[in-house]
Amino acid sequence: MRAAVMRRSKLVVDTVPDPEPGPGEVLVKTLACGICGSDLHALKHADLLVESARESGVPFVMDPARDVVMGHEFCAEVMDYGPGAQKTQPVGTRVVSMPLAMGGAGIQGVGYSNDYPGGYGELMKLSELFLLPVPNGLATEHAALTEPMAVGMHAVAKSRFEQWDAPIVIGCGPVGLAVIAALRLRGAEPIVAADFSPTRRALAQRMGAHVVVDPAERSAFEAWLPIAGGRPAVIFECVGVPGLLKQVMRDAPREARVVVAGVCMEEDRIRPTIGINKELSLQFVLGYTPDEFAGTLTAIAEGKIDVAPLVTGRVGVAGVPAAFEELAHPDAQAKVLVEPWR
Amino acid sequence: MRAAVMRRSKLVVDTVPDPEPGPGEVLVKTLACGICGSDLHALKHADLLVESARESGVPFVMDPARDVVMGHEFCAEVMDYGPGAQKTQPVGTRVVSMPLAMGGAGIQGVGYSNDYPGGYGELMKLSELFLLPVPNGLATEHAALTEPMAVGMHAVAKSRFEQWDAPIVIGCGPVGLAVIAALRLRGAEPIVAADFSPTRRALAQRMGAHVVVDPAERSAFEAWLPIAGGRPAVIFECVGVPGLLKQVMRDAPREARVVVAGVCMEEDRIRPTIGINKELSLQFVLGYTPDEFAGTLTAIAEGKIDVAPLVTGRVGVAGVPAAFEELAHPDAQAKVLVEPWR
Repeated sequence: MRAAVMRRSKLVVDTVPDPEPGPGEVLVKTLACGICGSDLHALKHADLLVESARESGVPFVMDPARDVVMGHEFCAEVMDYGPGAQKTQPVGTRVVSMPLAMGGAGIQGVGYSNDYPGGYGELMKLSELFLLPVPNGLATEHAALTEPMAVGMHAVAKSRFEQWDAPIVIGCGPVGLAVIAALRLRGAEPIVAADFSPTRRALAQRMGAHVVVDPAERSAFEAWLPIAGGRPAVIFECVGVPGLLKQVMRDAPREARVVVAGVCMEEDRIRPTIGINKELSLQFVLGYTPDEFAGTLTAIAEGKIDVAPLVTGRVGVAGVPAAFEELAHPDAQAKVLVEPWR
Repeated sequence: MRAAVMRRSKLVVDTVPDPEPGPGEVLVKTLACGICGSDLHALKHADLLVESARESGVPFVMDPARDVVMGHEFCAEVMDYGPGAQKTQPVGTRVVSMPLAMGGAGIQGVGYSNDYPGGYGELMKLSELFLLPVPNGLATEHAALTEPMAVGMHAVAKSRFEQWDAPIVIGCGPVGLAVIAALRLRGAEPIVAADFSPTRRALAQRMGAHVVVDPAERSAFEAWLPIAGGRPAVIFECVGVPGLLKQVMRDAPREARVVVAGVCMEEDRIRPTIGINKELSLQFVLGYTPDEFAGTLTAIAEGKIDVAPLVTGRVGVAGVPAAFEELAHPDAQAKVLVEPWR
């Protein structure tokens, strides 16, 4: 099959072997797959990613010296089943799935594995166990956004969000936008969001932010303070660059709950005394639960989360390397979908 | 009065003006006052302490260029009242108090203030509002331990501790020992505690730890894993030196809640990806609520927390500088009480 392949820290387009579904697995055709900021990180810092995953005991045990077909935000079509499958979804059914596979070597991440190619290729093999049929009528490109939107649902759940809390979203890339959508779904108000990019600020408003701030003009906290009226601060750090956490801790009000959803790959510095004096909490978050994933698909299908504004580009397999380049400049794009059948 | 005075980062014994109680204040005679690790920090890093307090908006607004009489873990005797006091406690009553004063300049920390001398001097002025009479019969030296033990009660409360949680206490200085006592009070079991010092490990056992570990031999996490049996990990970091938080995050199991009770004055480094991969939470903690303070006094008075093992030394005002020196070596002492009347 044709695929965009991560090969020794470069992204190349090549023909690679078709995946062959094993026991309990299903062969699917990739219909659409979002490009995730984590993939940009992974391309740049594959060794750091693997090292940190190994130390933390998480299942992304790929060998960066061997080919990896990335892509974990997908909608696909059932083509065939491996041996011993229950064939719960008829051939031709459109499905989404958490990007996890139960291979012989244990749990692996689809798209972060040498054995389970992701959605930047024409074909994937998935675990039948995780398949969710796309509810009738939901557009493929919107179903493909289930994964990134579930990240926002999870971040909000892990914040122990309550109706009375006053949220601040730092960074309005795909993670920040997903957090805004999840907050809006819970009826949070006001939602204050900040990003240097005017495009992203406009998207933040479309996704449900009540107040958007350009940090070049004033800080999100400055904007938040008078409208929050002393309510508890829940801060979503959705940027993930060194130094930002320290800055958030410096600016946060007393007893703020900080959710760290941005992935800073490098070692970072903090000032513990600031955290102590204000009794801050930092909750680091990753992924979502199966329930949150399924609930996100339902919320999108029922029109409770409108993901349409997020899709800003579409490319074929051949266009993936250029799309990665373009996504390094945050103002140009929100979510670019890879459509390998193009 | 005679007092041990922090004067330009040195501790000197001198005669200083007697405090004069203002409106709503009470003049007390210091009966006993514990030496706190924070005071050792403050002597060494007064500027850092003030800078970080100022940035965080906490009320410890002392000027380190002027005299400070430290000491905030005290039991005292009511001597006289300032103007307009309600005189709720008769002269001669033994009292404890949260070390906060409502002075003209707002809330100040007794013992971290140029205006409110702490218990390393013969006399203090306190806010009548915060006085708690020592329940009949409780020894003065045990009542003086209300403040440090309340720190442990607060840390455990902020961890959102539940019966099923399996705690790990890193560091068995006074903060760690207070955490162990608070955990024991809640019926936590097993409590795993670690310290390099054999004296402190013995104290940890006396305060209620079920398993004590010498980190030079094996890590607390190694000891914890087989006995916790997959229960949620709640880790109390009670050391506060640079690098320790990073180490705790590296060793912590998935979804552990880390309570940062040790005060690391310096900037520190962490690896966010480790926190993210394991979905760790860090809860920084400081002090206690008025309820927790009063509840701690009651628990000590009712014999539910036995603080007797903690008192390992007693000095007069003249002995404070030498006691500070000695407390820099953790094996020698747990809690040294200053008894200015000596």
